[in-house]
Amino acid sequence: MKKTLPALLLAASAALLSAPASAQFAKSEDAIKYRQSTLFVVGQHFGRLGAMANGKAPFDAKAAQENAAVLETVAKLPWSAFGDGTQGGKAKADIWKEKAKFNEHADQLVAEAAKLSAAAKTGDLAQLKAAFGPAAQTCKSCHDAFRSR
Amino acid sequence: MKKTLPALLLAASAALLSAPASAQFAKSEDAIKYRQSTLFVVGQHFGRLGAMANGKAPFDAKAAQENAAVLETVAKLPWSAFGDGTQGGKAKADIWKEKAKFNEHADQLVAEAAKLSAAAKTGDLAQLKAAFGPAAQTCKSCHDAFRSR
Repeated sequence: MKKTLPALLLAASAALLSAPASAQFAKSEDAIKYRQSTLFVVGQHFGRLGAMANGKAPFDAKAAQENAAVLETVAKLPWSAFGDGTQGGKAKADIWKEKAKFNEHADQLVAEAAKLSAAAKTGDLAQLKAAFGPAAQTCKSCHDAFRSR
Repeated sequence: MKKTLPALLLAASAALLSAPASAQFAKSEDAIKYRQSTLFVVGQHFGRLGAMANGKAPFDAKAAQENAAVLETVAKLPWSAFGDGTQGGKAKADIWKEKAKFNEHADQLVAEAAKLSAAAKTGDLAQLKAAFGPAAQTCKSCHDAFRSR
Protein backbone atom coordinates (compact mmCIF):
# COMPACT_ATOMS: atom_id res chain seq x y z
CA MET A 1 0.00 0.00 0.00
CA LYS A 2 2.66 2.45 -1.07
CA LYS A 3 1.40 5.97 -1.46
CA THR A 4 3.00 8.83 -3.32
CA LEU A 5 4.15 11.82 -1.34
CA PRO A 6 1.50 14.18 -2.81
CA ALA A 7 -1.20 11.59 -1.98
CA LEU A 8 0.08 11.41 1.58
CA LEU A 9 0.11 15.16 1.97
CA LEU A 10 -3.37 15.38 0.56
CA ALA A 11 -4.60 12.66 2.90
CA ALA A 12 -2.98 14.34 5.87
CA SER A 13 -4.34 17.75 5.02
CA ALA A 14 -7.78 16.31 4.39
CA ALA A 15 -7.69 14.67 7.81
CA LEU A 16 -6.68 17.93 9.42
CA LEU A 17 -9.38 19.91 7.68
CA SER A 18 -12.23 17.48 8.09
CA ALA A 19 -11.90 16.38 11.68
CA PRO A 20 -13.59 18.59 14.27
CA ALA A 21 -12.76 17.25 17.71
CA SER A 22 -16.41 17.29 18.66
CA ALA A 23 -17.14 14.66 16.05
CA GLN A 24 -14.37 12.34 17.15
CA PHE A 25 -13.83 12.63 20.89
CA ALA A 26 -16.42 12.39 23.63
CA LYS A 27 -14.58 14.99 25.71
CA SER A 28 -11.47 17.13 25.41
CA GLU A 29 -9.62 14.93 27.93
CA ASP A 30 -9.99 12.07 25.45
CA ALA A 31 -8.49 14.20 22.69
CA ILE A 32 -5.55 15.12 24.93
CA LYS A 33 -5.00 11.51 25.96
CA TYR A 34 -5.32 10.37 22.35
CA ARG A 35 -2.67 12.75 21.03
CA GLN A 36 -0.37 11.97 23.96
CA SER A 37 -0.86 8.24 23.40
CA THR A 38 -0.25 8.32 19.67
CA LEU A 39 2.77 10.62 19.99
CA PHE A 40 4.24 8.35 22.68
CA VAL A 41 3.86 5.38 20.34
CA VAL A 42 5.45 7.40 17.54
CA GLY A 43 8.35 8.24 19.86
CA GLN A 44 8.88 4.62 20.89
CA HIS A 45 9.06 3.28 17.35
CA PHE A 46 11.08 6.26 16.18
CA GLY A 47 13.50 5.66 19.04
CA ARG A 48 14.02 2.05 17.99
CA LEU A 49 14.81 3.17 14.45
CA GLY A 50 17.11 5.86 15.81
CA ALA A 51 19.03 3.35 17.91
CA MET A 52 19.73 1.36 14.74
CA ALA A 53 20.46 4.44 12.62
CA ASN A 54 22.88 5.74 15.25
CA GLY A 55 24.63 2.42 15.85
CA LYS A 56 23.38 2.07 19.42
CA ALA A 57 21.52 -1.13 18.53
CA PRO A 58 22.44 -3.76 15.95
CA PHE A 59 20.76 -3.21 12.58
CA ASP A 60 17.90 -5.65 12.09
CA ALA A 61 16.36 -5.04 8.68
CA LYS A 62 13.09 -6.83 9.49
CA ALA A 63 12.62 -5.01 12.80
CA ALA A 64 13.44 -1.70 11.14
CA GLN A 65 10.82 -2.31 8.47
CA GLU A 66 8.18 -3.29 11.03
CA ASN A 67 8.88 -0.32 13.27
CA ALA A 68 8.84 2.08 10.34
CA ALA A 69 5.54 0.65 9.07
CA VAL A 70 3.93 1.21 12.48
CA LEU A 71 5.44 4.69 12.59
CA GLU A 72 4.05 5.49 9.14
CA THR A 73 0.53 4.57 10.25
CA VAL A 74 0.56 6.07 13.74
CA ALA A 75 2.24 9.32 12.62
CA LYS A 76 -1.02 10.18 10.83
CA LEU A 77 -3.15 9.90 13.96
CA PRO A 78 -2.33 12.62 16.53
CA TRP A 79 -3.42 15.61 14.43
CA SER A 80 -7.18 15.15 14.53
CA ALA A 81 -6.89 15.40 18.32
CA PHE A 82 -5.79 19.06 18.32
CA GLY A 83 -9.28 20.34 17.56
CA ASP A 84 -10.81 23.54 18.88
CA GLY A 85 -11.46 23.47 22.61
CA THR A 86 -8.94 20.72 23.33
CA GLN A 87 -6.14 22.90 24.71
CA GLY A 88 -4.17 21.22 27.48
CA GLY A 89 -1.34 18.86 28.33
CA LYS A 90 2.04 19.92 27.01
CA ALA A 91 0.50 21.47 23.92
CA LYS A 92 1.31 25.18 23.74
CA ALA A 93 -1.60 27.56 23.11
CA ASP A 94 0.33 28.69 20.01
CA ILE A 95 -0.90 25.55 18.25
CA TRP A 96 -4.39 27.02 18.10
CA LYS A 97 -3.12 30.52 17.28
CA GLU A 98 -0.89 29.32 14.43
CA LYS A 99 -2.85 26.37 13.15
CA ALA A 100 -1.60 26.63 9.58
CA LYS A 101 2.02 26.50 10.74
CA PHE A 102 1.26 23.62 13.10
CA ASN A 103 -0.49 21.71 10.33
CA GLU A 104 2.57 22.17 8.12
CA HIS A 105 4.68 20.47 10.78
CA ALA A 106 2.13 17.67 11.05
CA ASP A 107 2.08 17.13 7.29
CA GLN A 108 5.86 17.14 7.27
CA LEU A 109 6.05 14.39 9.90
CA VAL A 110 3.59 12.27 7.95
CA ALA A 111 5.73 12.74 4.84
CA GLU A 112 9.02 12.03 6.65
CA ALA A 113 7.57 8.90 8.26
CA ALA A 114 6.57 7.64 4.82
CA LYS A 115 10.09 8.29 3.52
CA LEU A 116 11.57 6.50 6.52
CA SER A 117 9.31 3.54 5.91
CA ALA A 118 10.30 3.42 2.24
CA ALA A 119 13.97 3.58 3.29
CA ALA A 120 13.49 0.78 5.81
CA LYS A 121 11.88 -1.40 3.15
CA THR A 122 15.11 -1.33 1.13
CA GLY A 123 16.89 -3.20 3.92
CA ASP A 124 19.85 -0.86 3.48
CA LEU A 125 21.16 0.71 6.70
CA ALA A 126 22.69 3.63 4.79
CA GLN A 127 19.26 4.57 3.44
CA LEU A 128 17.71 4.27 6.91
CA LYS A 129 20.41 6.57 8.29
CA ALA A 130 19.86 9.08 5.50
CA ALA A 131 16.10 9.19 6.12
CA PHE A 132 16.37 9.28 9.91
CA GLY A 133 18.09 12.66 10.24
CA PRO A 134 15.44 14.79 8.48
CA ALA A 135 12.65 12.93 10.31
CA ALA A 136 14.32 13.59 13.68
CA GLN A 137 14.71 17.24 12.76
CA THR A 138 10.99 17.39 11.97
CA CYS A 139 10.12 16.07 15.45
CA LYS A 140 12.49 18.55 17.07
CA SER A 141 11.38 21.66 15.19
CA CYS A 142 7.73 21.04 16.03
CA HIS A 143 8.51 20.26 19.69
CA ASP A 144 10.65 23.40 19.95
CA ALA A 145 7.83 25.54 18.58
CA PHE A 146 4.73 23.92 20.03
CA ARG A 147 5.49 21.70 23.03
CA SER A 148 6.06 23.10 26.49
CA ARG A 149 8.62 21.43 28.74
CA MET B 1 -2.49 -5.14 2.13
CA LYS B 2 -5.09 -7.75 2.98
CA LYS B 3 -3.79 -10.64 5.04
CA THR B 4 -5.34 -14.01 5.55
CA LEU B 5 -6.46 -14.96 9.03
CA PRO B 6 -3.80 -17.69 9.45
CA ALA B 7 -1.13 -15.19 8.38
CA LEU B 8 -2.39 -12.72 10.93
CA LEU B 9 -2.43 -15.29 13.70
CA LEU B 10 1.06 -16.38 12.79
CA ALA B 11 2.27 -12.78 12.77
CA ALA B 12 0.66 -12.12 16.13
CA SER B 13 2.04 -15.25 17.72
CA ALA B 14 5.47 -14.57 16.30
CA ALA B 15 5.37 -11.07 17.76
CA LEU B 16 4.39 -12.45 21.14
CA LEU B 17 7.10 -15.06 21.10
CA SER B 18 9.94 -12.96 19.78
CA ALA B 19 9.58 -9.77 21.74
CA PRO B 20 11.29 -9.71 25.12
CA ALA B 21 10.48 -6.41 26.83
CA SER B 22 14.14 -5.82 27.52
CA ALA B 23 14.86 -5.60 23.81
CA GLN B 24 12.06 -3.15 23.08
CA PHE B 25 11.53 -0.87 26.06
CA ALA B 26 14.14 1.14 27.89
CA LYS B 27 12.32 0.62 31.20
CA SER B 28 9.20 -1.14 32.44
CA GLU B 29 7.38 2.19 32.83
CA ASP B 30 7.73 2.63 29.07
CA ALA B 31 6.21 -0.80 28.47
CA ILE B 32 3.28 0.04 30.77
CA LYS B 33 2.74 3.39 29.09
CA TYR B 34 3.04 1.80 25.65
CA ARG B 35 0.39 -0.83 26.30
CA GLN B 36 -1.90 1.72 27.95
CA SER B 37 -1.42 4.09 25.01
CA THR B 38 -2.05 1.52 22.32
CA LEU B 39 -5.07 0.04 24.12
CA PHE B 40 -6.51 3.52 24.59
CA VAL B 41 -6.16 4.15 20.85
CA VAL B 42 -7.76 0.76 20.15
CA GLY B 43 -10.64 1.71 22.45
CA GLN B 44 -11.19 5.07 20.78
CA HIS B 45 -11.38 3.68 17.26
CA PHE B 46 -13.40 0.70 18.42
CA GLY B 47 -15.80 3.08 20.14
CA ARG B 48 -16.35 5.04 16.93
CA LEU B 49 -17.14 1.82 15.08
CA GLY B 50 -19.45 0.76 17.91
CA ALA B 51 -21.35 4.04 17.78
CA MET B 52 -22.08 3.36 14.11
CA ALA B 53 -22.80 -0.33 14.62
CA ASN B 54 -25.22 0.49 17.45
CA GLY B 55 -26.97 3.35 15.67
CA LYS B 56 -25.68 6.01 18.07
CA ALA B 57 -23.83 7.76 15.25
CA PRO B 58 -24.77 7.97 11.57
CA PHE B 59 -23.13 5.29 9.44
CA ASP B 60 -20.27 6.75 7.41
CA ALA B 61 -18.75 4.00 5.29
CA LYS B 62 -15.49 5.87 4.66
CA ALA B 63 -15.00 6.74 8.33
CA ALA B 64 -15.81 3.17 9.34
CA GLN B 65 -13.22 1.82 6.94
CA GLU B 66 -10.56 4.27 8.15
CA ASN B 67 -11.25 3.59 11.83
CA ALA B 68 -11.21 -0.16 11.27
CA ALA B 69 -7.93 0.04 9.35
CA VAL B 70 -6.29 1.92 12.24
CA LEU B 71 -7.79 -0.57 14.67
CA GLU B 72 -6.41 -3.49 12.65
CA THR B 73 -2.88 -2.06 12.83
CA VAL B 74 -2.90 -0.82 16.42
CA ALA B 75 -4.57 -3.97 17.80
CA LYS B 76 -1.33 -5.82 17.04
CA LEU B 77 0.82 -3.51 19.16
CA PRO B 78 0.02 -3.78 22.88
CA TRP B 79 1.09 -7.39 23.36
CA SER B 80 4.85 -7.00 23.09
CA ALA B 81 4.59 -4.64 26.07
CA PHE B 82 3.50 -7.33 28.54
CA GLY B 83 6.99 -8.80 28.82
CA ASP B 84 8.54 -10.28 31.95
CA GLY B 85 9.20 -7.71 34.63
CA THR B 86 6.68 -5.19 33.34
CA GLN B 87 3.89 -5.86 35.84
CA GLY B 88 1.92 -2.76 36.76
CA GLY B 89 -0.89 -0.43 35.82
CA LYS B 90 -4.28 -2.10 35.57
CA ALA B 91 -2.75 -5.33 34.32
CA LYS B 92 -3.55 -8.18 36.70
CA ALA B 93 -0.65 -10.37 37.83
CA ASP B 94 -2.59 -13.29 36.31
CA ILE B 95 -1.38 -12.16 32.89
CA TRP B 96 2.12 -13.34 33.76
CA LYS B 97 0.86 -16.47 35.51
CA GLU B 98 -1.39 -17.51 32.61
CA LYS B 99 0.57 -16.21 29.68
CA ALA B 100 -0.72 -18.80 27.21
CA LYS B 101 -4.33 -17.94 28.00
CA PHE B 102 -3.56 -14.22 27.80
CA ASN B 103 -1.84 -14.67 24.45
CA GLU B 104 -4.91 -16.49 23.15
CA HIS B 105 -7.00 -13.44 23.98
CA ALA B 106 -4.46 -11.20 22.26
CA ASP B 107 -4.43 -13.34 19.13
CA GLN B 108 -8.21 -13.35 19.15
CA LEU B 109 -8.40 -9.55 19.24
CA VAL B 110 -5.95 -9.30 16.36
CA ALA B 111 -8.11 -11.73 14.39
CA GLU B 112 -11.39 -9.98 15.26
CA ALA B 113 -9.93 -6.58 14.33
CA ALA B 114 -8.95 -8.00 10.93
CA LYS B 115 -12.49 -9.33 10.44
CA LEU B 116 -13.95 -5.99 11.46
CA SER B 117 -11.69 -4.22 8.99
CA ALA B 118 -12.72 -6.61 6.22
CA ALA B 119 -16.38 -6.01 7.11
CA ALA B 120 -15.90 -2.24 7.09
CA LYS B 121 -14.31 -2.43 3.64
CA THR B 122 -17.55 -3.83 2.22
CA GLY B 123 -19.31 -0.54 3.03
CA ASP B 124 -22.26 -2.58 4.31
CA LEU B 125 -23.56 -1.57 7.74
CA ALA B 126 -25.10 -5.01 8.30
CA GLN B 127 -21.67 -6.62 7.93
CA LEU B 128 -20.11 -4.07 10.27
CA LYS B 129 -22.78 -4.83 12.87
CA ALA B 130 -22.25 -8.57 12.49
CA ALA B 131 -18.48 -8.23 12.99
CA PHE B 132 -18.74 -5.75 15.85
CA GLY B 133 -20.43 -8.02 18.39
CA PRO B 134 -17.79 -10.77 18.51
CA ALA B 135 -15.00 -8.16 18.59
CA ALA B 136 -16.64 -6.38 21.53
CA GLN B 137 -17.03 -9.71 23.32
CA THR B 138 -13.31 -10.35 22.81
CA CYS B 139 -12.43 -7.05 24.50
CA LYS B 140 -14.78 -7.76 27.37
CA SER B 141 -13.68 -11.32 28.08
CA CYS B 142 -10.02 -10.30 28.26
CA HIS B 143 -10.78 -7.26 30.44
CA ASP B 144 -12.91 -9.40 32.76
CA ALA B 145 -10.11 -11.92 33.17
CA PHE B 146 -7.01 -9.75 33.13
CA ARG B 147 -7.74 -6.08 33.85
CA SER B 148 -8.29 -4.79 37.37
CA ARG B 149 -10.84 -2.04 37.91
